[in-house]
Order: sequence, then structure tokens, then C-alpha cells
Amino acid sequence: MRMIEQQGALYGVVLAGGTGTRLWPLSRAGHPKFLHPLTGTDASLLQATVDRMDQLSSSDRVFVVTGVAHAAEVVRQLTEVPADNVLIEPSPRDSCAAIALAAAVIARREPEAIMGAFASDHLIADKAQFTRVIQQAMGGARQGLLMTLGITPTRPETGYGYLECGSVVGDGPVMAVQEFKEKPTYDVAESYVKSGNYLWNAGMFVWRVDVFLAELSRQQPQLAAGISRIAQAWDSPAREEVLGEVWPTLPRISVDYAVMEGAATVGRVGTIPGDFGWNDVGDFHTLGEVLVSDHAGNVVVGNEADGSKAGVLLRETENLVVVPTPGRLVAALGVRDLVIVDTPDAVLVCPRDRAQEVKSLVDALKDTDRLHYI
Amino acid sequence: MRMIEQQGALYGVVLAGGTGTRLWPLSRAGHPKFLHPLTGTDASLLQATVDRMDQLSSSDRVFVVTGVAHAAEVVRQLTEVPADNVLIEPSPRDSCAAIALAAAVIARREPEAIMGAFASDHLIADKAQFTRVIQQAMGGARQGLLMTLGITPTRPETGYGYLECGSVVGDGPVMAVQEFKEKPTYDVAESYVKSGNYLWNAGMFVWRVDVFLAELSRQQPQLAAGISRIAQAWDSPAREEVLGEVWPTLPRISVDYAVMEGAATVGRVGTIPGDFGWNDVGDFHTLGEVLVSDHAGNVVVGNEADGSKAGVLLRETENLVVVPTPGRLVAALGVRDLVIVDTPDAVLVCPRDRAQEVKSLVDALKDTDRLHYI
Repeated sequence: MRMIEQQGALYGVVLAGGTGTRLWPLSRAGHPKFLHPLTGTDASLLQATVDRMDQLSSSDRVFVVTGVAHAAEVVRQLTEVPADNVLIEPSPRDSCAAIALAAAVIARREPEAIMGAFASDHLIADKAQFTRVIQQAMGGARQGLLMTLGITPTRPETGYGYLECGSVVGDGPVMAVQEFKEKPTYDVAESYVKSGNYLWNAGMFVWRVDVFLAELSRQQPQLAAGISRIAQAWDSPAREEVLGEVWPTLPRISVDYAVMEGAATVGRVGTIPGDFGWNDVGDFHTLGEVLVSDHAGNVVVGNEADGSKAGVLLRETENLVVVPTPGRLVAALGVRDLVIVDTPDAVLVCPRDRAQEVKSLVDALKDTDRLHYI
Repeated sequence: MRMIEQQGALYGVVLAGGTGTRLWPLSRAGHPKFLHPLTGTDASLLQATVDRMDQLSSSDRVFVVTGVAHAAEVVRQLTEVPADNVLIEPSPRDSCAAIALAAAVIARREPEAIMGAFASDHLIADKAQFTRVIQQAMGGARQGLLMTLGITPTRPETGYGYLECGSVVGDGPVMAVQEFKEKPTYDVAESYVKSGNYLWNAGMFVWRVDVFLAELSRQQPQLAAGISRIAQAWDSPAREEVLGEVWPTLPRISVDYAVMEGAATVGRVGTIPGDFGWNDVGDFHTLGEVLVSDHAGNVVVGNEADGSKAGVLLRETENLVVVPTPGRLVAALGVRDLVIVDTPDAVLVCPRDRAQEVKSLVDALKDTDRLHYI
């Protein structure tokens, strides 16, 4: 990672949690989505998320928050991130606690630091535009706003939350966010898209750590007090003991509910519409839409577009999303619009337009007590 | 296997050769079709072929002709067949040499023995009817005819040879075979089926060994002489040496071309129409047609019809043919009319109606030098 000027550089916080059951059988409890090379290159989603910040931050300013189950693999994948920047949650406490911990640890180093919080399992096609948007968001953050990145919606998606935009702040490009809207029905989503006044809530945030922690104290005093206790012990021998004692008492709540909704109500949230090819890699169909395909629309994940390096043999196939596994061959003949995912112990076949329902297979495996496949 | 009366019992000869490339990736050069449990039970096709003769023969009268690559596995699967009844060809020499060797070895034990020759990789649904038909064929064989079993055609299949029937012999049910017809075009096959005078050539033969060997001498003197030399050395210390010297000189020719066509021309071939649910398990679609399916038409091969014992998870699927592999899971959601075959190192997905083209994938693997998958 390139070292950029220290003054004003971003602290990048990567949230490496969640399993991604709609990406089963690739994504497992033991090896979740963000650890997999679903990027069209050899890089995992996690690695790509860190690499993406190389014009904004420096390696020593990149933090990762992850759980005990995956911390070792996270450290192994992120060779340039200092070990002490990997913050390991003793148990899952949702995004507010994770983000607050990172903010508090960063604040000890630089009280008015600007941090960005990013999911570890999203794809972004246009890095240059992403960099520009984050720099604009950092401008809003310097003015004391909690910035959330909004994505200009391209369809009436019912799987995302929305941001209702207000007026432009100053000369722009920052816009005020009036209200956070939960996942809408299709009709409501359609009206949002038509109005032109709503953005998808992509769950990426940029703010000054002191501003965020103050808003946390105002809205979530218990959580803020707990994080404060942990932060005070962070650089002392008592870190593990205090973390182990306090962390389990923190409320499980998302940062949207805990802080952002209430902050928007009092006019403290801003956004930048971010048109940088954002994709949340929610399922294999979506993944296939953003990766490079061959002339017949087939996408082979984790390998060259023509599948030449991968263990695949495709003959008269169209619009497949194929995920091969090392040392095994996926052969397909005369099929189209299918997802075929191969792993060392399970293979999945389903139509691309039902890729979201893969989650139901995971439920069925639970119901039939085949937990080793989950 | 039940011991039946020695006098007049059948010598059953099982031809365990061929790889079955249309059943790739299950059937491999190293583990061909006949060794696999494609029967709807735990039995392999080979084991089922031997078991099927238990009302006709006795274990000590069952012979198997196989190649050096698979002999060990054949012996292991057929625990009741005497080791000396497993005839191992030093190299592949097509069906005439294999059948002639068995006939000559049997003739040394019982000169006028009746032998039946059967492929090791066919399925037969109605064993009782099969037993009756073979007993009728043995009647024809006793009269000095070379009997070939004919299957009443159910469709204008272009993948099989046909038998043109002549008049009924005596009081029946034996019918004379006028001519062997090679694989026809679709139009010709249609005319055969309409005429009612043609049967599929299933490649199952019943005859007296002396009658067959005489006809072999008449039509294939070189091959007959070679087999005679081998047979004379069979029960001596010179067996291996003579076999190794003579076998490679034998012509590669099928028994149909070498003997049966010429014998039919001179009126020495008879047939019994055999309606016992014959299936040559030529491809996975065909296999799916003969095995028990669940209520939605899904067939899980090698396991209970409902897949309960197998590593499968089928959700809203129809008319699948699924071949799982031990220790792995095949999950399918919302797909129909597909073949899904999983093996320890490769998985195949194709539509049932293109199952015959699987052979082309094997060719493609050869062309791309991925020989370890073949």
C-alpha cells in the first residue's frame, strides 16, 4: 500500500463479519464470504476492500474488526495491516459495537481523526470514482457531519434500506439526509426510484471519530460507556480482561438503528451519491453480473474470464455462473442461466433467478441435522 | 447363488469390458461402468448380471472375461465366482476372441455345454421373464442353433443394431434370424419398428459351445486355431506363455461380424423376443428411465428412491437424474430435466436430453490434455 501524506489521511475500518448464507456452499460459517476470491482476481473480497483504500489511507491506518473464528485467517490475508490493528470481538455484537470500538481505539491515537467504515464483502467496480467520493465525504466529515454513502438506485430493490435526501449542504456536493428508510415493499421502492430523491443505503460511513462518539454518547449512553471503558484499558495489560467483562454486556444493535437514524432526525447526517459500481455480492447471480464473462455470458469465478486456468469444461453453455474448486473439474454441457458452485464437499445447482433462495437450502440442512455442510 | 441341477444348467459368461464414456464422469477408464452401483441397489451392474443368473446356472458355472486393468476389482466384487473362472485377456481383442476363449475353456470341461454370453453393464427389470426367455433360448441351442436374444423395439432407436426375423422354428417360440442389420438411419429404424418384423440386437447369445466353435472354425479359421492352441494349454503350466504369445495375434473383431452375420445367412441363427425390461444403461438419461424415482420424477442413483440415505438435498426439482458420491453433498434448487453427476474429482451438469453428448466432453478433455479426468 502506498504511503500517503499523514496529515488528513483516512483511517479505514473494515468490518469483517457475517457469513453470507445466500452464497452457500462456498460461504460457510467456518469460511465466510469475505475470505473468498469473488473479485474476478485472486484477491479475496477482504483483500480487495483493503487494497481499494490505497489512495486514501496508509497501511498503519487500516483497522479490521472481526470475530474470534476468522481472526487468524484475516491476519494471514492482510499481510500489510499491523497485527495490533486487527480488533477481535469476543462475540458478535452487531455493527454499532464493532464500529464504536474502532472509533474509540482510533480516537486514542488521533482524537479528531476521520474514519471510514466499510463492509469487507462488497465489490466496487470503479476505484478512482470511489476514491473521489470518499474524499468528498471526508469534506462533509470535517464540517462535523456523520456521512453515509448513498448509491443511486438502478432498480426498485426491496432488499436494501434507502436514504431520503434533503437539501444540498453549502455549495455541495454533500446533501443532507432527512431520514433512513427500512427495506421497502416493491411499490414503495418503485416510488422511491421514480422520485429521484432516494439513495440506497450502502452501509459505508465517513466521520470524525469524536463526532461519532459524541453522538453515540447522546443516543446510546450504555454502549458508549462500555466502549469507553474498553478503550481506556486498550493499551494496558488489562485489555483482555476488560474486553471480556464489558463486551458481552453491550447491546446488539446496528449502527443505523443505534445512531444514524436519530442523527438524521436532528440534521447531523450527510451523504454523497456514490456511483462507483457498487455491488453487495448478495448472491451468485449478482456476483455474475459484475464479473467479466466470456462471449456466451458465462462467468467463471476466481479465474480468468475464459476459465482457462480453472477446472472447468463448458460446452454450449450460456450465462452460467460457475465457481470451481481447486483440484476438481466442473463440466457443463448444453445448459444456460444456471449457478453451479463446487466446493470440496458439496456442489450446488440452481437457476440464476433463484439464487437468493439458496438460503433456504441452508435452513433445510439445519432442519435435517446436516450441520457439517453449513 | 442357489445351486441348481447340474444336468442341463447354463454356463453363464459375463463380458466385463468397455468403459462407457457416455457415463462420464462416473465411468472412467480406471473404473468403468460395470463396476458401479447403477442398479438402484448397492449391487454393481456386474454383480447384478451374475445375480440375475441364479435360477439358470450355478456359481461354479459362471465365467467372467475381463481385462488386466479391472480383473482385481472384478474378483473382489464377485466373491462367489471361482477365481479360475475369471478369464483375463492380456489385451483387448473385441468380443469374438473373448467369447471364443470362454467357449473353448468351457468345452474342455463339458464339450456340449450350453453357454450364455451377457454384457456386464446392462439392466434387466424383470428377472423372472429373463429366466424364462433364456430357458426358451436354451431349447433352441439344444437344437443346434446359435441363439441371439432380440428385444421388441419400443422406438425407432438409431443406436442399436437390428435383427430381421424369419419364420418360426418348429412349434416356436424360437424364430429364425434372416439377417443382422447395422445401426440404421432414423427413417429406416422407423420402418423396422412399423413392420413388426425386427428386433433390437441386444448382444446376448445362447448356444452349445461345440456348435459355436464349429461355426467359428468355418468362418474365422485363424481365430479358431489360435483359441484352440490357448485352450489346449489352459490346464497346463504353459497357459500364460501360450496366452501371451497367441492372444496378441488374434483379430480384433466383434462376434456379430465374425460369426453371427454369416451364420444367419446359412440359417443357423435363432432368436426369442425378450420383453424383460432390457436397458443398456447407455447414458444417464436412460438410466433415470429404469430406476425408481420420487414423486417428482427425481432419480437418485445408488440409493433409496427418496435419497434419504444419500448426500443429496433436492428442493423444488423435477425429473433429475442425480448421482451423488460418498462424503459429498449434491444440492439442487428449482431445476428440472437435468443430469447431475458428482464424483470425487469432477461434477457434470447437462440436460437429460443431451446425455448422449457427454462423450464429447471426454473428447474435449483429451484434446485439452486433461487425461487424469478420463
